[in-house]
Amino acid sequence: MDMEEIVQAVAQRLFIEVEASGRHVHVTEEQAKRLFGHSLTPMRELSQPGQYVARERVTVVGPKGGFQNVAVLGPARKAAQVEISLTDGKTLGIDPPVRLSGAVTGSPGVTLVGSAGKVELSEGVICAQRHIHMTPADAARYGIRDGERVRLKVYTGRPVIFEEVPVRISADFQTRVHLDFDEANACGFRKGDLGRILQ
Amino acid sequence: MDMEEIVQAVAQRLFIEVEASGRHVHVTEEQAKRLFGHSLTPMRELSQPGQYVARERVTVVGPKGGFQNVAVLGPARKAAQVEISLTDGKTLGIDPPVRLSGAVTGSPGVTLVGSAGKVELSEGVICAQRHIHMTPADAARYGIRDGERVRLKVYTGRPVIFEEVPVRISADFQTRVHLDFDEANACGFRKGDLGRILQ
Repeated sequence: MDMEEIVQAVAQRLFIEVEASGRHVHVTEEQAKRLFGHSLTPMRELSQPGQYVARERVTVVGPKGGFQNVAVLGPARKAAQVEISLTDGKTLGIDPPVRLSGAVTGSPGVTLVGSAGKVELSEGVICAQRHIHMTPADAARYGIRDGERVRLKVYTGRPVIFEEVPVRISADFQTRVHLDFDEANACGFRKGDLGRILQ
Repeated sequence: MDMEEIVQAVAQRLFIEVEASGRHVHVTEEQAKRLFGHSLTPMRELSQPGQYVARERVTVVGPKGGFQNVAVLGPARKAAQVEISLTDGKTLGIDPPVRLSGAVTGSPGVTLVGSAGKVELSEGVICAQRHIHMTPADAARYGIRDGERVRLKVYTGRPVIFEEVPVRISADFQTRVHLDFDEANACGFRKGDLGRILQ
Protein backbone atom coordinates (compact mmCIF):
# COMPACT_ATOMS: atom_id res chain seq x y z
CA MET A 1 0.00 0.00 0.00
CA ASP A 2 1.23 3.48 -0.75
CA MET A 3 0.35 6.42 1.49
CA GLU A 4 -2.77 7.32 -0.50
CA GLU A 5 -4.12 3.77 -0.20
CA ILE A 6 -3.49 3.78 3.55
CA VAL A 7 -5.34 7.08 3.96
CA GLN A 8 -8.22 5.71 1.91
CA ALA A 9 -8.35 2.46 3.89
CA VAL A 10 -8.49 4.39 7.17
CA ALA A 11 -11.14 6.77 5.80
CA GLN A 12 -13.27 3.83 4.64
CA ARG A 13 -12.73 2.06 7.97
CA LEU A 14 -11.30 -0.94 6.15
CA PHE A 15 -9.09 -2.03 9.07
CA ILE A 16 -10.45 -4.71 11.38
CA GLU A 17 -9.36 -5.37 14.96
CA VAL A 18 -7.62 -8.70 15.38
CA GLU A 19 -8.01 -10.85 18.48
CA ALA A 20 -6.15 -14.03 19.44
CA SER A 21 -8.24 -16.70 21.17
CA GLY A 22 -6.36 -18.82 23.69
CA ARG A 23 -7.41 -22.37 24.45
CA HIS A 24 -10.84 -22.48 26.08
CA VAL A 25 -13.83 -24.63 26.83
CA HIS A 26 -17.59 -24.32 26.37
CA VAL A 27 -19.84 -26.56 28.47
CA THR A 28 -23.56 -27.27 28.84
CA GLU A 29 -25.53 -26.15 31.89
CA GLU A 30 -25.66 -29.74 33.09
CA GLN A 31 -21.89 -30.18 32.64
CA ALA A 32 -21.22 -26.91 34.51
CA LYS A 33 -23.15 -28.31 37.47
CA ARG A 34 -21.21 -31.57 37.38
CA LEU A 35 -17.85 -29.78 37.05
CA PHE A 36 -18.39 -26.94 39.53
CA GLY A 37 -21.53 -27.81 41.51
CA HIS A 38 -23.29 -24.72 40.09
CA SER A 39 -23.85 -22.68 36.90
CA LEU A 40 -21.10 -20.59 35.32
CA THR A 41 -20.35 -17.23 36.95
CA PRO A 42 -19.55 -14.37 34.53
CA MET A 43 -16.22 -12.70 35.36
CA ARG A 44 -15.18 -10.65 32.30
CA GLU A 45 -17.06 -9.65 29.14
CA LEU A 46 -15.68 -10.61 25.71
CA SER A 47 -15.83 -8.50 22.55
CA GLN A 48 -18.77 -10.49 21.17
CA PRO A 49 -21.92 -9.24 22.95
CA GLY A 50 -23.25 -11.56 25.69
CA GLN A 51 -20.13 -13.77 25.71
CA TYR A 52 -18.01 -13.88 28.85
CA VAL A 53 -15.07 -15.55 30.57
CA ALA A 54 -16.36 -17.47 33.58
CA ARG A 55 -14.81 -17.37 37.04
CA GLU A 56 -14.66 -21.20 36.87
CA ARG A 57 -11.63 -22.95 35.31
CA VAL A 58 -11.02 -26.55 34.27
CA THR A 59 -8.16 -28.95 33.73
CA VAL A 60 -8.18 -30.54 30.26
CA VAL A 61 -6.64 -34.03 30.21
CA GLY A 62 -5.67 -35.87 27.01
CA PRO A 63 -3.90 -39.19 26.43
CA LYS A 64 -0.40 -37.60 26.43
CA GLY A 65 -0.70 -34.56 28.68
CA GLY A 66 -2.95 -31.89 30.12
CA PHE A 67 -3.50 -28.19 30.68
CA GLN A 68 -4.51 -26.76 34.03
CA ASN A 69 -6.46 -23.60 34.63
CA VAL A 70 -8.12 -23.47 31.19
CA ALA A 71 -10.69 -20.68 30.62
CA VAL A 72 -14.38 -21.59 30.43
CA LEU A 73 -16.49 -19.27 28.29
CA GLY A 74 -20.16 -18.61 28.92
CA PRO A 75 -23.04 -18.66 28.52
CA ALA A 76 -23.59 -22.44 28.65
CA ARG A 77 -24.14 -24.08 25.26
CA LYS A 78 -26.15 -26.99 23.91
CA ALA A 79 -22.97 -29.06 23.43
CA ALA A 80 -19.51 -28.95 24.95
CA GLN A 81 -16.65 -27.68 22.82
CA VAL A 82 -12.93 -27.55 23.59
CA GLU A 83 -10.97 -25.15 21.37
CA ILE A 84 -7.22 -25.72 21.25
CA SER A 85 -4.37 -24.94 18.86
CA LEU A 86 -2.61 -27.68 16.87
CA THR A 87 0.40 -27.06 19.15
CA ASP A 88 -1.83 -27.75 22.17
CA GLY A 89 -3.04 -30.89 20.40
CA LYS A 90 0.53 -32.24 20.32
CA THR A 91 0.84 -31.68 24.09
CA LEU A 92 -2.49 -33.42 24.76
CA GLY A 93 -1.89 -36.22 22.26
CA ILE A 94 -4.97 -35.25 20.24
CA ASP A 95 -5.15 -34.26 16.55
CA PRO A 96 -8.18 -31.96 16.38
CA PRO A 97 -9.86 -31.07 13.07
CA VAL A 98 -9.73 -27.40 12.04
CA ARG A 99 -13.40 -26.37 12.17
CA LEU A 100 -15.69 -23.43 12.76
CA SER A 101 -17.25 -23.23 16.21
CA GLY A 102 -20.21 -25.58 16.60
CA ALA A 103 -18.98 -28.21 14.10
CA VAL A 104 -17.92 -30.85 16.61
CA THR A 105 -19.47 -34.00 15.08
CA GLY A 106 -16.89 -36.80 14.94
CA SER A 107 -14.15 -34.71 16.60
CA PRO A 108 -11.97 -36.30 19.33
CA GLY A 109 -12.99 -36.39 22.98
CA VAL A 110 -11.13 -35.34 26.12
CA THR A 111 -11.56 -35.28 29.90
CA LEU A 112 -12.52 -32.09 31.77
CA VAL A 113 -11.83 -31.83 35.50
CA GLY A 114 -13.46 -29.11 37.59
CA SER A 115 -13.56 -28.19 41.27
CA ALA A 116 -16.55 -30.49 41.94
CA GLY A 117 -16.29 -33.28 39.40
CA LYS A 118 -15.19 -34.72 36.10
CA VAL A 119 -16.79 -34.89 32.64
CA GLU A 120 -15.66 -37.31 29.91
CA LEU A 121 -16.41 -35.85 26.49
CA SER A 122 -16.75 -38.39 23.69
CA GLU A 123 -16.30 -35.58 21.15
CA GLY A 124 -15.91 -31.80 21.07
CA VAL A 125 -12.21 -31.02 20.64
CA ILE A 126 -11.55 -28.78 17.64
CA CYS A 127 -8.93 -26.33 16.44
CA ALA A 128 -10.97 -23.17 15.84
CA GLN A 129 -10.75 -22.16 12.20
CA ARG A 130 -9.75 -18.50 11.86
CA HIS A 131 -12.78 -16.38 11.04
CA ILE A 132 -14.16 -12.87 10.95
CA HIS A 133 -17.20 -11.80 12.94
CA MET A 134 -18.90 -8.93 11.16
CA THR A 135 -21.84 -6.60 11.70
CA PRO A 136 -24.36 -6.32 8.83
CA ALA A 137 -23.37 -2.65 8.43
CA ASP A 138 -19.68 -3.50 7.95
CA ALA A 139 -20.59 -6.39 5.63
CA ALA A 140 -22.63 -3.99 3.48
CA ARG A 141 -19.68 -1.58 3.35
CA TYR A 142 -17.29 -4.37 2.31
CA GLY A 143 -19.86 -5.96 -0.01
CA ILE A 144 -19.49 -9.35 1.71
CA ARG A 145 -22.11 -12.10 2.11
CA ASP A 146 -22.48 -14.34 5.16
CA GLY A 147 -20.19 -17.39 4.79
CA GLU A 148 -18.04 -15.76 2.10
CA ARG A 149 -14.31 -16.47 2.31
CA VAL A 150 -11.85 -13.59 2.04
CA ARG A 151 -8.13 -12.95 2.07
CA LEU A 152 -7.03 -11.12 5.18
CA LYS A 153 -3.75 -9.29 5.47
CA VAL A 154 -2.52 -8.66 9.01
CA TYR A 155 -0.25 -5.73 9.85
CA THR A 156 1.94 -7.45 12.39
CA GLY A 157 5.57 -8.11 13.19
CA ARG A 158 5.71 -11.10 10.82
CA PRO A 159 3.25 -10.02 8.10
CA VAL A 160 1.02 -12.70 6.66
CA ILE A 161 -1.98 -12.94 4.36
CA PHE A 162 -4.46 -15.51 5.63
CA GLU A 163 -6.40 -17.00 2.74
CA GLU A 164 -9.91 -18.47 2.72
CA VAL A 165 -11.01 -16.79 5.93
CA PRO A 166 -14.78 -17.26 6.40
CA VAL A 167 -16.86 -14.25 7.38
CA ARG A 168 -19.85 -14.71 9.68
CA ILE A 169 -22.34 -11.87 9.67
CA SER A 170 -24.80 -11.17 12.48
CA ALA A 171 -26.37 -8.20 14.19
CA ASP A 172 -25.23 -9.88 17.43
CA PHE A 173 -21.55 -9.51 16.47
CA GLN A 174 -18.88 -6.88 16.70
CA THR A 175 -16.54 -6.84 13.71
CA ARG A 176 -13.41 -8.72 14.76
CA VAL A 177 -10.88 -11.18 13.31
CA HIS A 178 -10.33 -14.25 15.49
CA LEU A 179 -7.04 -16.14 15.20
CA ASP A 180 -5.81 -18.98 17.34
CA PHE A 181 -2.50 -18.78 19.20
CA ASP A 182 -0.49 -20.65 16.54
CA GLU A 183 -1.66 -18.14 13.96
CA ALA A 184 -1.12 -15.21 16.34
CA ASN A 185 2.46 -16.30 17.08
CA ALA A 186 3.16 -17.15 13.44
CA CYS A 187 2.33 -13.58 12.41
CA GLY A 188 3.90 -11.95 15.46
CA PHE A 189 0.55 -10.58 16.62
CA ARG A 190 0.50 -8.04 19.44
CA LYS A 191 -2.72 -6.82 21.09
CA GLY A 192 -4.08 -3.91 19.05
CA ASP A 193 -2.72 -5.06 15.67
CA LEU A 194 -5.07 -4.61 12.74
CA GLY A 195 -6.03 -6.61 9.67
CA ARG A 196 -7.52 -5.67 6.32
CA ILE A 197 -9.59 -7.63 3.84
CA LEU A 198 -7.95 -7.73 0.41
CA GLN A 199 -10.48 -7.31 -2.35
CA MET B 1 -4.30 -20.48 -10.09
CA ASP B 2 -6.21 -22.08 -12.91
CA MET B 3 -5.16 -25.44 -14.36
CA GLU B 4 -2.91 -23.90 -17.02
CA GLU B 5 -1.03 -21.87 -14.40
CA ILE B 6 -0.55 -24.98 -12.27
CA VAL B 7 0.84 -26.95 -15.22
CA GLN B 8 3.17 -24.06 -16.02
CA ALA B 9 4.35 -23.76 -12.41
CA VAL B 10 5.15 -27.48 -12.27
CA ALA B 11 6.92 -27.34 -15.63
CA GLN B 12 9.03 -24.39 -14.50
CA ARG B 13 9.74 -26.12 -11.19
CA LEU B 14 8.29 -23.14 -9.34
CA PHE B 15 7.20 -25.19 -6.32
CA ILE B 16 9.56 -25.30 -3.35
CA GLU B 17 9.66 -27.95 -0.64
CA VAL B 18 8.65 -26.64 2.76
CA GLU B 19 10.27 -27.84 5.98
CA ALA B 20 9.28 -27.06 9.58
CA SER B 21 12.16 -26.59 12.02
CA GLY B 22 11.44 -27.67 15.58
CA ARG B 23 13.20 -26.09 18.52
CA HIS B 24 16.92 -26.80 18.46
CA VAL B 25 20.30 -25.70 19.70
CA HIS B 26 23.68 -24.93 18.11
CA VAL B 27 26.75 -24.98 20.35
CA THR B 28 30.47 -24.30 20.03
CA GLU B 29 33.06 -27.08 20.15
CA GLU B 30 34.09 -25.96 23.64
CA GLN B 31 30.45 -25.93 24.84
CA ALA B 32 29.85 -29.43 23.38
CA LYS B 33 32.76 -30.69 25.49
CA ARG B 34 31.40 -29.04 28.63
CA LEU B 35 27.86 -30.33 28.00
CA PHE B 36 28.66 -33.87 26.85
CA GLY B 37 32.34 -34.48 27.66
CA HIS B 38 33.12 -34.84 23.92
CA SER B 39 32.40 -33.38 20.47
CA LEU B 40 29.01 -33.73 18.76
CA THR B 41 28.26 -37.08 17.14
CA PRO B 42 26.40 -36.93 13.80
CA MET B 43 23.22 -39.05 13.88
CA ARG B 44 21.05 -37.94 10.94
CA GLU B 45 21.73 -35.69 7.93
CA LEU B 46 19.59 -32.60 7.32
CA SER B 47 18.48 -31.26 3.93
CA GLN B 48 21.17 -28.53 3.95
CA PRO B 49 24.47 -30.21 2.96
CA GLY B 50 26.87 -30.87 5.87
CA GLN B 51 24.27 -30.09 8.56
CA TYR B 52 23.20 -32.87 10.90
CA VAL B 53 21.18 -33.75 13.99
CA ALA B 54 23.56 -34.87 16.74
CA ARG B 55 23.08 -37.93 18.91
CA GLU B 56 23.46 -35.61 21.93
CA ARG B 57 20.43 -33.82 23.40
CA VAL B 58 20.11 -31.00 25.92
CA THR B 59 17.61 -29.63 28.41
CA VAL B 60 16.85 -25.92 27.87
CA VAL B 61 15.93 -24.11 31.09
CA GLY B 62 14.38 -20.64 31.18
CA PRO B 63 13.04 -18.53 34.07
CA LYS B 64 9.50 -19.97 33.81
CA GLY B 65 9.97 -23.48 32.46
CA GLY B 66 12.09 -25.85 30.42
CA PHE B 67 12.21 -28.33 27.57
CA GLN B 68 13.92 -31.70 27.87
CA ASN B 69 15.44 -33.71 25.08
CA VAL B 70 16.00 -30.75 22.70
CA ALA B 71 17.82 -31.51 19.42
CA VAL B 72 21.39 -30.26 18.97
CA LEU B 73 22.42 -29.55 15.38
CA GLY B 74 25.95 -29.87 14.10
CA PRO B 75 28.58 -29.09 13.11
CA ALA B 76 29.72 -26.94 16.06
CA ARG B 77 29.49 -23.18 15.43
CA LYS B 78 31.44 -20.10 16.48
CA ALA B 79 28.63 -19.02 18.80
CA ALA B 80 25.78 -20.83 20.54
CA GLN B 81 22.26 -20.30 19.24
CA VAL B 82 18.96 -21.56 20.61
CA GLU B 83 16.08 -21.47 18.11
CA ILE B 84 12.60 -21.61 19.60
CA SER B 85 9.10 -20.59 18.56
CA LEU B 86 7.27 -17.68 20.23
CA THR B 87 5.00 -20.33 21.80
CA ASP B 88 8.11 -22.02 23.28
CA GLY B 89 9.20 -18.59 24.52
CA LYS B 90 6.02 -18.31 26.61
CA THR B 91 6.74 -21.70 28.21
CA LEU B 92 10.35 -20.73 28.98
CA GLY B 93 9.48 -17.20 30.12
CA ILE B 94 11.64 -15.66 27.38
CA ASP B 95 10.59 -13.24 24.61
CA PRO B 96 13.05 -13.96 21.78
CA PRO B 97 13.53 -11.56 18.87
CA VAL B 98 12.54 -12.86 15.42
CA ARG B 99 15.89 -13.00 13.59
CA LEU B 100 17.77 -14.81 10.88
CA SER B 101 20.21 -17.46 12.06
CA GLY B 102 23.49 -15.96 13.29
CA ALA B 103 22.00 -12.64 14.45
CA VAL B 104 22.14 -13.28 18.18
CA THR B 105 23.64 -10.02 19.47
CA GLY B 106 21.60 -8.68 22.38
CA SER B 107 19.18 -11.64 22.38
CA PRO B 108 18.16 -13.25 25.70
CA GLY B 109 20.20 -15.97 27.39
CA VAL B 110 19.18 -19.38 28.72
CA THR B 111 20.68 -22.39 30.50
CA LEU B 112 21.64 -25.58 28.64
CA VAL B 113 22.04 -28.83 30.58
CA GLY B 114 23.78 -31.83 29.00
CA SER B 115 24.80 -35.28 30.15
CA ALA B 116 28.17 -34.04 31.47
CA GLY B 117 27.61 -30.43 32.45
CA LYS B 118 25.82 -27.13 32.22
CA VAL B 119 26.36 -24.00 30.09
CA GLU B 120 24.88 -20.61 30.96
CA LEU B 121 24.36 -18.58 27.79
CA SER B 122 24.26 -14.81 28.26
CA GLU B 123 22.67 -14.45 24.80
CA GLY B 124 21.69 -16.62 21.84
CA VAL B 125 17.93 -17.29 22.07
CA ILE B 126 16.11 -16.28 18.90
CA CYS B 127 12.91 -17.14 17.09
CA ALA B 128 14.17 -18.16 13.65
CA GLN B 129 12.75 -15.86 11.00
CA ARG B 130 11.16 -17.83 8.17
CA HIS B 131 13.45 -17.92 5.17
CA ILE B 132 14.19 -19.66 1.91
CA HIS B 133 17.48 -21.41 1.19
CA MET B 134 18.12 -21.36 -2.53
CA THR B 135 20.70 -22.68 -4.97
CA PRO B 136 22.21 -20.14 -7.42
CA ALA B 137 20.59 -22.10 -10.27
CA ASP B 138 17.10 -21.80 -8.78
CA ALA B 139 17.73 -18.13 -7.93
CA ALA B 140 18.66 -17.47 -11.56
CA ARG B 141 15.49 -19.21 -12.72
CA TYR B 142 13.35 -17.16 -10.34
CA GLY B 143 15.32 -13.96 -10.99
CA ILE B 144 15.98 -13.45 -7.29
CA ARG B 145 19.00 -11.79 -5.62
CA ASP B 146 20.57 -12.87 -2.35
CA GLY B 147 18.77 -11.18 0.56
CA GLU B 148 15.70 -10.28 -1.51
CA ARG B 149 12.35 -10.63 0.25
CA VAL B 150 9.52 -12.45 -1.49
CA ARG B 151 5.90 -13.42 -0.90
CA LEU B 152 5.49 -17.13 -0.43
CA LYS B 153 2.21 -18.94 -0.81
CA VAL B 154 1.97 -22.33 0.90
CA TYR B 155 -0.36 -25.05 -0.36
CA THR B 156 -1.42 -26.44 2.98
CA GLY B 157 -4.53 -27.25 4.99
CA ARG B 158 -4.89 -23.67 6.18
CA PRO B 159 -3.53 -21.73 3.21
CA VAL B 160 -1.42 -18.67 3.96
CA ILE B 161 0.77 -16.22 2.09
CA PHE B 162 3.88 -15.39 4.08
CA GLU B 163 5.09 -11.90 3.21
CA GLU B 164 8.62 -10.48 3.35
CA VAL B 165 10.36 -13.86 3.35
CA PRO B 166 14.11 -13.39 2.89
CA VAL B 167 15.92 -15.58 0.37
CA ARG B 168 19.48 -16.69 1.07
CA ILE B 169 21.39 -17.95 -1.93
CA SER B 170 24.42 -20.22 -1.74
CA ALA B 171 25.96 -23.07 -3.70
CA ASP B 172 26.08 -24.87 -0.33
CA PHE B 173 22.27 -24.89 -0.07
CA GLN B 174 19.40 -27.01 -1.29
CA THR B 175 16.31 -24.99 -2.20
CA ARG B 176 13.95 -25.22 0.77
CA VAL B 177 11.53 -23.05 2.73
CA HIS B 178 12.11 -23.11 6.48
CA LEU B 179 9.21 -22.31 8.80
CA ASP B 180 9.10 -22.57 12.57
CA PHE B 181 6.47 -24.70 14.32
CA ASP B 182 4.10 -21.80 15.03
CA GLU B 183 4.07 -20.99 11.33
CA ALA B 184 3.80 -24.67 10.38
CA ASN B 185 0.81 -25.20 12.68
CA ALA B 186 -0.79 -21.89 11.67
CA CYS B 187 -0.85 -22.98 8.04
CA GLY B 188 -1.69 -26.63 8.78
CA PHE B 189 1.61 -27.82 7.28
CA ARG B 190 2.10 -31.54 6.68
CA LYS B 191 5.42 -33.07 5.63
CA GLY B 192 5.67 -32.88 1.86
CA ASP B 193 3.56 -29.73 1.41
CA LEU B 194 4.85 -27.26 -1.16
CA GLY B 195 5.17 -23.51 -1.43
CA ARG B 196 5.46 -21.12 -4.36
CA ILE B 197 6.99 -17.69 -4.68
CA LEU B 198 4.46 -15.12 -5.91
CA GLN B 199 5.98 -12.78 -8.43
